[in-house]
Amino acid sequence: MSVRFERVAVVGVGLIGGSVAMELGALGLAGRRIGVDLDEANLAQALELGIVDEAASLASAAAGADLVVVAVPPAEIPAVVLEAAEHTSPSAVLTDVGSVKGPVAAALAVRLSRFVPGHPVAGTEKSGAAAAMRDLFRGRRCILTPGPTTDGGALAAVRDLWEALGAEVVLMDPQRHDLVCAAVSHLPHAAVYALTSAIGACSERWPELVGLGAGGFIDTTRIASSDPRMWRDVFLLNRDAVLESLAVYRDRVEEITRLIATGDGPGLERFFGEMKVLRARMLQGR
Amino acid sequence: MSVRFERVAVVGVGLIGGSVAMELGALGLAGRRIGVDLDEANLAQALELGIVDEAASLASAAAGADLVVVAVPPAEIPAVVLEAAEHTSPSAVLTDVGSVKGPVAAALAVRLSRFVPGHPVAGTEKSGAAAAMRDLFRGRRCILTPGPTTDGGALAAVRDLWEALGAEVVLMDPQRHDLVCAAVSHLPHAAVYALTSAIGACSERWPELVGLGAGGFIDTTRIASSDPRMWRDVFLLNRDAVLESLAVYRDRVEEITRLIATGDGPGLERFFGEMKVLRARMLQGR
Repeated sequence: MSVRFERVAVVGVGLIGGSVAMELGALGLAGRRIGVDLDEANLAQALELGIVDEAASLASAAAGADLVVVAVPPAEIPAVVLEAAEHTSPSAVLTDVGSVKGPVAAALAVRLSRFVPGHPVAGTEKSGAAAAMRDLFRGRRCILTPGPTTDGGALAAVRDLWEALGAEVVLMDPQRHDLVCAAVSHLPHAAVYALTSAIGACSERWPELVGLGAGGFIDTTRIASSDPRMWRDVFLLNRDAVLESLAVYRDRVEEITRLIATGDGPGLERFFGEMKVLRARMLQGR
Repeated sequence: MSVRFERVAVVGVGLIGGSVAMELGALGLAGRRIGVDLDEANLAQALELGIVDEAASLASAAAGADLVVVAVPPAEIPAVVLEAAEHTSPSAVLTDVGSVKGPVAAALAVRLSRFVPGHPVAGTEKSGAAAAMRDLFRGRRCILTPGPTTDGGALAAVRDLWEALGAEVVLMDPQRHDLVCAAVSHLPHAAVYALTSAIGACSERWPELVGLGAGGFIDTTRIASSDPRMWRDVFLLNRDAVLESLAVYRDRVEEITRLIATGDGPGLERFFGEMKVLRARMLQGR
């Protein structure tokens, strides 16, 4: 593996940042990994688990780093990237892992040619350093949304980073990224939060419901256990694209409600059959 | 294990029926397992996989059986149970595994005291004999909805059967069963079918979406790969209860849409935090 960083600052040692640090260490791709986290208990745990080699403030972690990975909640990314950039050398590369790119990341990329906006499309419903894991990015895609003034060397370094972690790198326009991720990731979260809430309301009427959920319930609602703060940020930052996908979704909920209400057996069977085929096709593209 | 059946007829050797037969065989609880299936290729596969010991018609499988397990699509259960009952001895016990109980199963139970309506709350998105698996029912619940005239010995035999397969048996009123399962199982399927359809519609506008689905998409839409015919029957047979749950769901979708549209950050974070807690509580009851 040709890519190697001497000093990597990971800002936000949670599920994603922690997994990046863990994997860099395991693959021997980082000389030293410095963790930064406002949550001191989480940072201590990252140290204890060996996910990072040392803990530091943002300023001292950034100083001397050749790579800064910003993995804080989406709304805080711009401020953290700008502050980190103030302390790094001019040759350092900065990147983030935020789920929303759009105008904010684009503006940041224009302002800072060494910043490469990134989004590894991977995760679990868990959060914090304890949730960090090996192989989280292997076989997944990582979307990069460089701007017109993004430095070519910085882009190559971030591409090498993600490919070394096993991801397939895809370049995308940031606005396009947000529309696509609204549909394939943010909409499912909204639908599942609403579903969990509806089942919860029903469980108050029929308490024997609790504990009856089988595999379908468990898998379908898994992402409702995700980090509330991160998902608040995603919905606030990607509001328009999410509302566009939600409009399509609400239309489909009306459609299936109509098929059920009218007792349209052939229509239901055709619809379900098409979804089985569609899902197989969507997964094949992976 | 005290329960043992000499001759078990399994009608419909799919995911559920096949898993019952497989488990009975593996645990040595059945002298002989006779498979019945209108799908000849599926029945041949069940034989080849050793899930059943022989293949037969419904009439000859039922003759001499001390237990008949009916695991056909929900809409066909009443006719199959009645036909099987015509051919069994007066001491034989009949049961089914249908996801909808309600008035149809209740009427059948009144008419046939040796028929114990059952519903193992377990499954995967796969179907057919090839999807049969060990331990599918272990740690799950199996709901029985006996009627006022159900034979005590028959009920005990079916309870013993499911407990031997590792399930916790729960007795429930059939109407109540349908309301509860509409919320915890049928509603998630409706929501996920609509979600898959919406994502599919978006993928036509943004083709790069295909293949981008990560764990959240994969798990959330898993049940959209379920058997279309079975789910058509479930929605047709449990229409009123499903519509009741769907009304609650649509209300929650409107609520989350409103929170996103108005950019209500504290409201979103509170909502998501509550769902994380709620889901943990719902799973704890398992």
